[in-house]
Amino acid sequence: MTVPVHESTGVLGAERPGSGRIVLAHGGGGQLTDDLLMGTLLPRLGNARLNALLDAAMLDADGRRLALTLDGYVVKPWRFPGGDIGRLAVCGTINDLAVSGARPLGMALGLILEEGLEEAALETVLDSVAAAGREAGVEVVGGDTKVVEHRNGDGLYITTAGVGLARPGIELSPQRVQPGDAILINGFIGDHGLAVMLARQMPQVQSVLRSDAAPLNGLIDALLDAVGGAVAFMRDATRGGLAGVAVDLALRSGWHITLEEEAIPVRGEAQHAADMLGLDPLEIANEGKIVAVVRAEAAEAALQAMRSHPLGRDAARIGTVGEVADGICELHTSIGGRRVVQKPYGEQLPRIC
Amino acid sequence: MTVPVHESTGVLGAERPGSGRIVLAHGGGGQLTDDLLMGTLLPRLGNARLNALLDAAMLDADGRRLALTLDGYVVKPWRFPGGDIGRLAVCGTINDLAVSGARPLGMALGLILEEGLEEAALETVLDSVAAAGREAGVEVVGGDTKVVEHRNGDGLYITTAGVGLARPGIELSPQRVQPGDAILINGFIGDHGLAVMLARQMPQVQSVLRSDAAPLNGLIDALLDAVGGAVAFMRDATRGGLAGVAVDLALRSGWHITLEEEAIPVRGEAQHAADMLGLDPLEIANEGKIVAVVRAEAAEAALQAMRSHPLGRDAARIGTVGEVADGICELHTSIGGRRVVQKPYGEQLPRIC
Repeated sequence: MTVPVHESTGVLGAERPGSGRIVLAHGGGGQLTDDLLMGTLLPRLGNARLNALLDAAMLDADGRRLALTLDGYVVKPWRFPGGDIGRLAVCGTINDLAVSGARPLGMALGLILEEGLEEAALETVLDSVAAAGREAGVEVVGGDTKVVEHRNGDGLYITTAGVGLARPGIELSPQRVQPGDAILINGFIGDHGLAVMLARQMPQVQSVLRSDAAPLNGLIDALLDAVGGAVAFMRDATRGGLAGVAVDLALRSGWHITLEEEAIPVRGEAQHAADMLGLDPLEIANEGKIVAVVRAEAAEAALQAMRSHPLGRDAARIGTVGEVADGICELHTSIGGRRVVQKPYGEQLPRIC
Repeated sequence: MTVPVHESTGVLGAERPGSGRIVLAHGGGGQLTDDLLMGTLLPRLGNARLNALLDAAMLDADGRRLALTLDGYVVKPWRFPGGDIGRLAVCGTINDLAVSGARPLGMALGLILEEGLEEAALETVLDSVAAAGREAGVEVVGGDTKVVEHRNGDGLYITTAGVGLARPGIELSPQRVQPGDAILINGFIGDHGLAVMLARQMPQVQSVLRSDAAPLNGLIDALLDAVGGAVAFMRDATRGGLAGVAVDLALRSGWHITLEEEAIPVRGEAQHAADMLGLDPLEIANEGKIVAVVRAEAAEAALQAMRSHPLGRDAARIGTVGEVADGICELHTSIGGRRVVQKPYGEQLPRIC
């Protein structure tokens, strides 16, 4: 693992790292989340499947390979341009299954509601859950509801789990990544995190940015149908953003990863909002973007397959896996410079998903 | 459905039912939880599998029958005599799979931590998760961690999901219940809820009561190995207690259910604590008790199988399914009376699991 960058934590909240207490950034998907995982969780719970740290864990069910995934959602505000916590929860679960190469079989929905939450708000969220489920073609088949005392208006947390059936013959893992592989993304980055941040920090600002939250199982079906075995690895670029995925990929594959800044799709409005908030689009959470690592010879066909789907129209090749086994991710900047990409230490703003 | 008993709600907290806002009792597993489920959740998300309202939803995975379950845990305090929220979360998930007739394949662990939580507390909880997993022989294979701002010291919420493989040839559902069937339980009721309530409400009281939280997959294996097809239905008696399970069973099977108060195992200490708190042991949550409905001719063998397992030593036959199709649950009291058992309206105290 790289040395954590402690100088500038970007950690908001009352607690500081190193106090023996949990800080907000422990949940941010950055270096501190890794520290918690490696230092506290894995030593206690570790086993081969958990240690693989996949988006979805693979299980054997009497000869069928299953994927199991679970994610919590605490986004604030619970509604934002382009979606709400219900849509987010469904898309996140579907996408974790899909990037693992599994076809979703069903979801379970866990609600933790705050006393005093308006029933109308809950109804809105449930309508979103249902709509996103229909979009993905996946049903909520079970769930649970708990209520906790009134606090400060957060309203509700959602935890969703999903189970999927792995496609036979598809193996996806950082270990399958090879020098020469192309790194693809299905469209513009940063929109989700920026839309949420603007809604929270600058509600007076009118922006065209909308969350990209979308179920990607259809897009991934199209990709795998087209170039199946040529896909080495996929991951959705949520907490930690594209930077988080690329840095993890370099570390876990062991190869040098190069990203081309010029090729990474960022909307002008997103760059502008990121500049205004002092953020790097590379580090901002997405909820409808996958990074796919594909054999070089299949890259063009993979891009065509992605572009043929409505959620991949702006797909682009954004980088390459290099020959050097240094586990470093490097960015070639638009102005001809180079810099090492690091995982955000904490998160830029808490509770973005 | 029975008419809800609105006179005495036992609802604690700032909000009242009917205000258009969520109240604590919506999460209590009683009548208000049913109202939320039937009035708000099912109309939006409903589908055949969700509508079955099983502890675990059954899914088809290319010819294999899978069970998927998910539950949230918000128990307060997070540690109590006999266990903590980590043990509870694992046992609850294992038990939901096991009562569905499935063998657990793996679990996923979702943590929502409060900023400021002591890392040592998290470590304690994770140690409990690991220990309960070992006891059950089931691993945590995935998970997720989020952090929310400091509030009032609740500390942490857990949501666990589990997936299991259904035993071939075992069908469990209220529809399989028949007149004459015996109703069994594997031991003393009320210990969990009372231990938590005493720890919260009367921390100065020294009590021998300890939570019964335990993974029941081993006990259920023993039961199904012994009398397999003679088991019509099982459910763990958590929120809503034995009363909740029995009332649901009557409603959903359509038959008259009779419980014999004298036969229901209640410890003297539990009855005493319940009296002190003004509660009915029948309505108190358990985390290590299953209610099993078994064909009359197999009842003795089923009891023997349960008693041969350490978690079923005090197993007892507590009731019978009657010939009348009125969907009512009736209690024959110890002093020779009869009363209709109703589902608790809210919960007796909130956040017991």
